[in-house]
Amino acid sequence: MSDTGITTKKSVDFSEWYMETVLKSELADYAPVKGCMIIREHAYAIWEKIQEVFNKKIKATGHKNVYFPMFIPEGFLKKEAEHFEGFVPEVAWVTEGGSSPLEEKLAIRPTSETIMYDAFAKWVRSWRDLPIKINQWCNIVRWETKATKLFLRTREFLWQEGHTVHATSEEAEKEVMDILLEYKDLMEKYLAIPVLIGVKTENEKFAGALYTTTLEAIMPDGKALQMGTSHNLGQNFGKVFDIKFIGEDKQDHYVWQTSWGITTRLIGAVVMVHGDDKGLVLPPKVAPVHVVIVPIPYKGADLEAIKAKAREIEARLKEKNLAVVLDDREEYTPGWKFNHWELKGVPVRIEIGPRDLKQKRVTLARRDTGAKCVVKEDEAVSTVETLLEEIQHNLYAKARIALEEKTTTIKSYNEFKKVLSEKGGFLKASWCGNAKCEEKIKEETGATIRLRPFEKEEPIAGCVYCGEKAVEMVYFARSY
Amino acid sequence: MSDTGITTKKSVDFSEWYMETVLKSELADYAPVKGCMIIREHAYAIWEKIQEVFNKKIKATGHKNVYFPMFIPEGFLKKEAEHFEGFVPEVAWVTEGGSSPLEEKLAIRPTSETIMYDAFAKWVRSWRDLPIKINQWCNIVRWETKATKLFLRTREFLWQEGHTVHATSEEAEKEVMDILLEYKDLMEKYLAIPVLIGVKTENEKFAGALYTTTLEAIMPDGKALQMGTSHNLGQNFGKVFDIKFIGEDKQDHYVWQTSWGITTRLIGAVVMVHGDDKGLVLPPKVAPVHVVIVPIPYKGADLEAIKAKAREIEARLKEKNLAVVLDDREEYTPGWKFNHWELKGVPVRIEIGPRDLKQKRVTLARRDTGAKCVVKEDEAVSTVETLLEEIQHNLYAKARIALEEKTTTIKSYNEFKKVLSEKGGFLKASWCGNAKCEEKIKEETGATIRLRPFEKEEPIAGCVYCGEKAVEMVYFARSY
Repeated sequence: MSDTGITTKKSVDFSEWYMETVLKSELADYAPVKGCMIIREHAYAIWEKIQEVFNKKIKATGHKNVYFPMFIPEGFLKKEAEHFEGFVPEVAWVTEGGSSPLEEKLAIRPTSETIMYDAFAKWVRSWRDLPIKINQWCNIVRWETKATKLFLRTREFLWQEGHTVHATSEEAEKEVMDILLEYKDLMEKYLAIPVLIGVKTENEKFAGALYTTTLEAIMPDGKALQMGTSHNLGQNFGKVFDIKFIGEDKQDHYVWQTSWGITTRLIGAVVMVHGDDKGLVLPPKVAPVHVVIVPIPYKGADLEAIKAKAREIEARLKEKNLAVVLDDREEYTPGWKFNHWELKGVPVRIEIGPRDLKQKRVTLARRDTGAKCVVKEDEAVSTVETLLEEIQHNLYAKARIALEEKTTTIKSYNEFKKVLSEKGGFLKASWCGNAKCEEKIKEETGATIRLRPFEKEEPIAGCVYCGEKAVEMVYFARSY
Repeated sequence: MSDTGITTKKSVDFSEWYMETVLKSELADYAPVKGCMIIREHAYAIWEKIQEVFNKKIKATGHKNVYFPMFIPEGFLKKEAEHFEGFVPEVAWVTEGGSSPLEEKLAIRPTSETIMYDAFAKWVRSWRDLPIKINQWCNIVRWETKATKLFLRTREFLWQEGHTVHATSEEAEKEVMDILLEYKDLMEKYLAIPVLIGVKTENEKFAGALYTTTLEAIMPDGKALQMGTSHNLGQNFGKVFDIKFIGEDKQDHYVWQTSWGITTRLIGAVVMVHGDDKGLVLPPKVAPVHVVIVPIPYKGADLEAIKAKAREIEARLKEKNLAVVLDDREEYTPGWKFNHWELKGVPVRIEIGPRDLKQKRVTLARRDTGAKCVVKEDEAVSTVETLLEEIQHNLYAKARIALEEKTTTIKSYNEFKKVLSEKGGFLKASWCGNAKCEEKIKEETGATIRLRPFEKEEPIAGCVYCGEKAVEMVYFARSY
């Protein structure tokens, strides 16, 4: 348990503030192995909420959870050339089992396309076997060489990976988009983080995909964060792994596939977007604790009566399926408790002191604005419910405004570089569609094309880099 | 999708029947890496039920889920000597990351005591920080050299591991027993598998524990299966990892710890105990599908009217939170569907044909006994609910009788060997408490002491091996 609050201001040193907030709020801790992390109970409870929401969404549309082995033979990874090149530089290899060297070294899954699709080739025979719509929640290992950062880039992380197999291209396209929109709903309605959606460029797409759709959010330091991706794999893997079916037309066809994922980095996004100088600010819909009740034992007060009232209100809140902590520990002061639960990001605090008790009222404090209000005891539960809704909406609205403020429409390359260095954020600029311009911009500024929006806008100028005829407006940013 | 039913009889070749049932019911499939398995959607759904039940139990008693890294530095495993010796022969080692060799090779967790307890040493300062009660659901790797078997022994499997830290020995003892009884409830009330509970001998306890409590079931082939264990670690790990706290008495104390786990092998136990020659028989409380509805389209029947009735009954069952599949596919015959869903172990089938429709009735078939009954349409839902309860009880009752039939009280070593080879099962015999007798029996017969029961019985003879004075009756068996 942390004894002290956050000492770094979010506006002064964002990166330091982030690390301090993650550690002191006890979301995570460093692990003895470099680049790995311990996901502590407070963060894991957020992950469980994300799992609950997303499982409900995908199960309603006929997806089923499974578990495939973590070990992938080297030969499997090599089958799809682009995929192999994309992932091999960051694979961790098992070379010994017990006290003996292995005959073939085994990759720890950096993603599971290859091991799953080998099985699909066995399972799919006829159009009757399609579609396959599966998902797994598991750990993933990518041996990062870049600097790691808790939740955002670690060598092991948790994710879900969905994989579907379809008889037609149209079905696969629809699946890619359906999932993208479910992700958007999760991020905006639950995590209260607005996202832009669109398509990745060829340079930035998933290794082996036909195309990759993406959800991108902007962080307070002006860097973009890729929040999730949904890939149309076309028939690329189907051809490599020989996944064919006999259609109703009695002919052989290769299948059409998709894959899609979100990871524990979403927890990092919640910290960055909503947190403040006191610590976490959690959106009620994913907060492990909605309400903390703190009895205020002024000297000479009837503490037992206060505690009894607190327990009564706790019970009424729990009846509404709210997660409540009654912090009646006597070894900590109310002030310590206020700081502690603010650090943890609990959306609403209820204080009950002797005067509250006498006047049959309670004091409510909301975490996002710090505003306090006093309400009658019998209005406590309904007021908490209203406050939770307001907080959820307010966090999203604030983040929406920040996204808009951090999006700049750019006309020239000079302006591009100026805005990028002074303000960062999304730079909406016209692009000729040439990968070379994209690469040059990346080399010279560190910004990449985060997405090509689904809703096309007419270019407002020539290509921001080469000046030639532009084909579309795209979003650039530096990113995590 | 499998086209054919089980071809091996359970009573003729149990081992072959088991493999065929697991594969054809699509619970699991072999993986390309030897000794690993693919857990398919039908089995994973059972695992999710187990997770749901057990999460509810442990969260109600204040345990929280977390996630610790999978990689453990070699030095950590070495800290507790017994633990190291117990696990090192079956550790898989990562030695390369990306294209470079690692400085220190990393174990993939065979269990997480060492990595967790290193963190506990940082987190625990004062009595205020206790107890810690955490749990994680994760994958585990043990590089088995023995023959592997789907669900029962694989090199990678899924489990939960709970770890608690307490200020006193009494609290740790209570935790060990509380969890053991929660496991017993899960196994008996949900999986419908009766278990014996007791303590492991020194030879059989967890490497590094003070003592291990265990739950043991008997399989139809007469071999015992360890269903779960709950360990009192005493202060062993606390001393090695230096986990100390300042008590209310202002003195330093080492903590008292427990750990406990159950694995995906429980799914294998369900298959073995309840399955029959037609395939799986799933206890309703963990069945992914409770009811399948099969319309029977006799020639000339009004198929649309039958389907409409089926959908109506489906909706009424779903209102009761039952998992229902309406199998109205036209590319399969009713007979094929009966076999298919019996293979999958669905507890209740509803058939609706033209005559049923006319007479406003439906036909119900129960999976466990094969019995059929015809009920009025408006009694269909309540009858299904009653049947599900009956099936749950019947499966447990049958397994209970089998356990009793497979338990023999033994008076002499000759009788011991005879019963073991002819019938197997649990052999209840008197033991002098000497590890050498235990080892000799293992060497000579392959049977080990599965547990020393909590409820002591007076020895009925001298030690079954050496004839010297016996101290207690214990349960021997050959085991998985």
